[in-house]
Amino acid sequence: MKSFRHYKNDKYLRAEENRRELGFGKQVNPHVRLVNRDGTFNVQRIGGSFWGRINLFNRLVTCSWNQFFMVVLIYFVVVNIVFAIIYNLVGVEHLQGVDLSTPFTRFWDAFFFSAQTITTVGYGHIAPKGLLMSIVASAESLLGLMGFAIATGLLYGRFSRAQAYILYSDKAVIAPYLDMTAFMFRIVNERSNQLIDLAVEVNLSMLEINEHGKTHRTYTRLHLERSQVNFFPSSWTIVHPITDESPLFGLTQAQLIEKQAEFLILVKATEDTFNQAVHARTSYHAKEVVYGAKFVSMFQEMTDEGVLYLDLNKLSETTEVPLVSSLYPDSDA
Amino acid sequence: MKSFRHYKNDKYLRAEENRRELGFGKQVNPHVRLVNRDGTFNVQRIGGSFWGRINLFNRLVTCSWNQFFMVVLIYFVVVNIVFAIIYNLVGVEHLQGVDLSTPFTRFWDAFFFSAQTITTVGYGHIAPKGLLMSIVASAESLLGLMGFAIATGLLYGRFSRAQAYILYSDKAVIAPYLDMTAFMFRIVNERSNQLIDLAVEVNLSMLEINEHGKTHRTYTRLHLERSQVNFFPSSWTIVHPITDESPLFGLTQAQLIEKQAEFLILVKATEDTFNQAVHARTSYHAKEVVYGAKFVSMFQEMTDEGVLYLDLNKLSETTEVPLVSSLYPDSDA
Amino acid sequence: MKSFRHYKNDKYLRAEENRRELGFGKQVNPHVRLVNRDGTFNVQRIGGSFWGRINLFNRLVTCSWNQFFMVVLIYFVVVNIVFAIIYNLVGVEHLQGVDLSTPFTRFWDAFFFSAQTITTVGYGHIAPKGLLMSIVASAESLLGLMGFAIATGLLYGRFSRAQAYILYSDKAVIAPYLDMTAFMFRIVNERSNQLIDLAVEVNLSMLEINEHGKTHRTYTRLHLERSQVNFFPSSWTIVHPITDESPLFGLTQAQLIEKQAEFLILVKATEDTFNQAVHARTSYHAKEVVYGAKFVSMFQEMTDEGVLYLDLNKLSETTEVPLVSSLYPDSDA
Amino acid sequence: MKSFRHYKNDKYLRAEENRRELGFGKQVNPHVRLVNRDGTFNVQRIGGSFWGRINLFNRLVTCSWNQFFMVVLIYFVVVNIVFAIIYNLVGVEHLQGVDLSTPFTRFWDAFFFSAQTITTVGYGHIAPKGLLMSIVASAESLLGLMGFAIATGLLYGRFSRAQAYILYSDKAVIAPYLDMTAFMFRIVNERSNQLIDLAVEVNLSMLEINEHGKTHRTYTRLHLERSQVNFFPSSWTIVHPITDESPLFGLTQAQLIEKQAEFLILVKATEDTFNQAVHARTSYHAKEVVYGAKFVSMFQEMTDEGVLYLDLNKLSETTEVPLVSSLYPDSDA
Repeated sequence: MKSFRHYKNDKYLRAEENRRELGFGKQVNPHVRLVNRDGTFNVQRIGGSFWGRINLFNRLVTCSWNQFFMVVLIYFVVVNIVFAIIYNLVGVEHLQGVDLSTPFTRFWDAFFFSAQTITTVGYGHIAPKGLLMSIVASAESLLGLMGFAIATGLLYGRFSRAQAYILYSDKAVIAPYLDMTAFMFRIVNERSNQLIDLAVEVNLSMLEINEHGKTHRTYTRLHLERSQVNFFPSSWTIVHPITDESPLFGLTQAQLIEKQAEFLILVKATEDTFNQAVHARTSYHAKEVVYGAKFVSMFQEMTDEGVLYLDLNKLSETTEVPLVSSLYPDSDA
Repeated sequence: MKSFRHYKNDKYLRAEENRRELGFGKQVNPHVRLVNRDGTFNVQRIGGSFWGRINLFNRLVTCSWNQFFMVVLIYFVVVNIVFAIIYNLVGVEHLQGVDLSTPFTRFWDAFFFSAQTITTVGYGHIAPKGLLMSIVASAESLLGLMGFAIATGLLYGRFSRAQAYILYSDKAVIAPYLDMTAFMFRIVNERSNQLIDLAVEVNLSMLEINEHGKTHRTYTRLHLERSQVNFFPSSWTIVHPITDESPLFGLTQAQLIEKQAEFLILVKATEDTFNQAVHARTSYHAKEVVYGAKFVSMFQEMTDEGVLYLDLNKLSETTEVPLVSSLYPDSDA
Repeated sequence: MKSFRHYKNDKYLRAEENRRELGFGKQVNPHVRLVNRDGTFNVQRIGGSFWGRINLFNRLVTCSWNQFFMVVLIYFVVVNIVFAIIYNLVGVEHLQGVDLSTPFTRFWDAFFFSAQTITTVGYGHIAPKGLLMSIVASAESLLGLMGFAIATGLLYGRFSRAQAYILYSDKAVIAPYLDMTAFMFRIVNERSNQLIDLAVEVNLSMLEINEHGKTHRTYTRLHLERSQVNFFPSSWTIVHPITDESPLFGLTQAQLIEKQAEFLILVKATEDTFNQAVHARTSYHAKEVVYGAKFVSMFQEMTDEGVLYLDLNKLSETTEVPLVSSLYPDSDA
Repeated sequence: MKSFRHYKNDKYLRAEENRRELGFGKQVNPHVRLVNRDGTFNVQRIGGSFWGRINLFNRLVTCSWNQFFMVVLIYFVVVNIVFAIIYNLVGVEHLQGVDLSTPFTRFWDAFFFSAQTITTVGYGHIAPKGLLMSIVASAESLLGLMGFAIATGLLYGRFSRAQAYILYSDKAVIAPYLDMTAFMFRIVNERSNQLIDLAVEVNLSMLEINEHGKTHRTYTRLHLERSQVNFFPSSWTIVHPITDESPLFGLTQAQLIEKQAEFLILVKATEDTFNQAVHARTSYHAKEVVYGAKFVSMFQEMTDEGVLYLDLNKLSETTEVPLVSSLYPDSDA
């Protein structure tokens, strides 16, 4: 190891600084996609604290509505079973109005008393008597209020979460564009709420072999014909013109696949209802790029009333177009 | 189709890049306004997922208060009818306290028991007996809590939604300004809460015929005499001076209408109560521009106590002013 | 009126553009302060829509806690009186358990039944009988739930509102600073939650008489020795050095008062608990500037444990310091 | 004291302006760390308003869950005791259903009636009779609703608070890096929710003795090999290369400790679930820097399915590495 160097002359350091890095690190794993289509990453956490790992609030806010209501229902049933057992241990004879005839009725009447207590319905045809039973019932009603407060918070969190519901075309395409060729994909806002000040960034990641024969991932930001718009009422086709300065210049799909090429898409916007910044991301793997196809219009024929109809089902619809005879042109570069 | 070109020399690409584009695409529809007065767009979504299309939360947050309370009321009545039917199917004889004398009383007593359960009032003069009835009543009380939690979230969402309640003058005017002419419109904050760091952008969209005789929409950002202010306690007249560099220079109203001219207004600010960024937008169509009018002051006579009174009803009030004899001056350009 | 001019050569337009304008407009009212000490403005809205004017949510979120709870209590009492009257009109004989003996008991039992219904307590010792009474009671319980949901939203809005609880020294001072004189004031974060990335802007507004003898307000941004800090754990004295480039250079307090000088203070920061941007503003009138005083340290003697104690009560404490013999120095300018 | 000076030539003023200042002021306290490991500061507020000092909402939102539920429970018990006393003062004979036999039962039945009222369970086996008792019970139910609304708000505030749950390595290290030496520490996102657009700033604070022999704190921003990443799916080692321009150049750990060196770490990011800006901070004291150690990989062996496992327990794991023979190299500077 050598001694300290002048900063500005150190070529290693400068190379390292100039290397575009998106935060994925240097591992090269041919089986792993960097970003999945739904924007998630292929990294799992292990170790760490229990609550940090399960991240309860985040999960209950981001899970599907079916999962959410299932969790609520299971919680409700389990808590009532637990309290039914506690009431039976305390002695259901301290619950006036309970049918004491069989263990079955003793359990279920306690269960429903629990349900009436935790939801604060409290009909009163069953009611606690005696100190211990009253304490348990009070505790349960407090627990019910807290649980309900938490549910309210979770529901509001689920609703109000500013999200960019952006739909991406299933495939990206390589198609003629003006008098050259371009890489394109199309996005649309699924929802009727508006997204404004939309900005898109596209990075291309490919495996390259460096001078020492070692494979590493490179990251290049692709120049876009237009990288932002003020409004996003309809669809938007993002276009990267494949000039001779593009890292895609002259590459066939087979070569892209060999290099494990992945197009990383980042979208930023402002959601108009709550005026919050939103982010979305996805990626197109080399296999998800179609050579010689272009997107068809998503607009239906205009009606007399002057409203444009945008058909979301046509987002990924393409038609074939002939590409230039060779992707390796007698370049006038 | 030609081969790939040098990026920087490609005039088509550069023209495309320089073309100002707000995200409306290239369609030319003479019947359609780009942006409505209330800031909405004339594009409707069809296809796509059911929930994406109805966008429930967003609608319930953005609809009027009358609509919102109507939805809540209808939901309440319908759910109680459904549960009244279920209780009758289970057998209202399992609800102690119900008047079993007629089908009419059997239904309505079940209906009101349902209402008392779902609101968790639970007087208890009617109460469930037996396993099945108790299960249904428990389920309803849980549903009630969830529904109420959702309502709480919706109400908070409605209230707290940071909005710029900006009122725009009904018309824009073309009037003398300093020693030239200017396009002007006026805005005021309807609410007493403050908007700070207000910024305005005005884009003019017109139909133009290009060299190939094809009609297309152009978008030009108008230079404003002042495009932002720190505070917005009173009214603000936004001024675009019509110099010879303005796309409005020398155009009559008839010409503006023929070109389907539309002034797209974008306002950004920070709402001071919750310190959130807010956006608002509107547009003035050529027909909504008045030539030879200027806005009158919105301030009332000052009182002794030193408080200024701003009369919102005068926002759109104008007086006639003579314009220069000709809008086509012997320009000293 | 002259014809259109070249934009860039028009001196009037450029002068207008260069004029610093904070959004207060051009009115000159000697009785009115631009910004009050608490950051509010002296402009009242009249006209406009009813709801826009009363701005209910905003008021209930920004009013004092005493006012808020008073509103809640009055609402609760009034609604219950209204429903007590309705129940009496429907006929309290349809409320089982009501003491029908006197009009007094008929009213109050209906009143408390109403209270038990709207809070969803529903003890049940009074309960509705018959269709009409049941409908009214159901409606009231729904109203209760809605009211409660609104209260929850309001309370959360009040709590979570990101605010910069910045305390400002009562007076600004003019004191020696390094080897010159400076305008200074001091701020401190009242709360123990942190504010980070704090930035301060100071604008001086004064009445000036222009070349045509007309009085108008000028606005000048004052250069600060330091206009932002990353952290704000203790107090911060904001310093404007009165160099010969400062609009304060050579002005006595009498002159400042004559010119209705007002120092407009704008503070921006990020609140650390909820990570939200916060804004605060205040102003110092010429009369609130003390010549020849400097702030004393707010820190108490350090204790052994190594914790610094910051005494908020000392925020405005100053000691006299001699100023330079003359504020009109034999300037070496 | 001298007279006013030209601004631009004043070297004192310029030195003051150029001095890097993070907001800690100029006090030099050798016992006090500027920033604790958990990001808090060693400054306590005294004086000021009562509510400003206790800052209730903020505390209840930022305290631990155990503390929060303890506060709720204590509040619940205390309020019920208070109301049990009030009910006894009013006379529990006005509560129908109360066991009046002993003072013990009179108190506890009133206590549980209070609990049933404040949670709005309202079984009804105990119910208020008479005007005064009904008024108190109504007031309590209103109080219950308000308390519950506040709890809902607090719980939502606790949940939704955007936080960067960033874990920092226990120690920072000085280790070989490329062909020189670097200061490094490692961070990881504890949670599975994503942080994007992560930016890190590192400032080094040291005690220095100036020309007049006075000790003061200096603040230097350290140049980082990479100061931001777009994504943060795995761990990130922040690297400050110790070139001859670094303030760390040639300093031994003993010297760092003598100078009370403290590395102040600031992290900014956007939390992906709620799309909010988040901030985190910590510091490494000179004693928490290990010379001659480097971090080991946190990744487990890759599995066949192509998922990477990141072991959070390895965050602070290091192995020894030999440093250059001398930290005072025959520098080729």
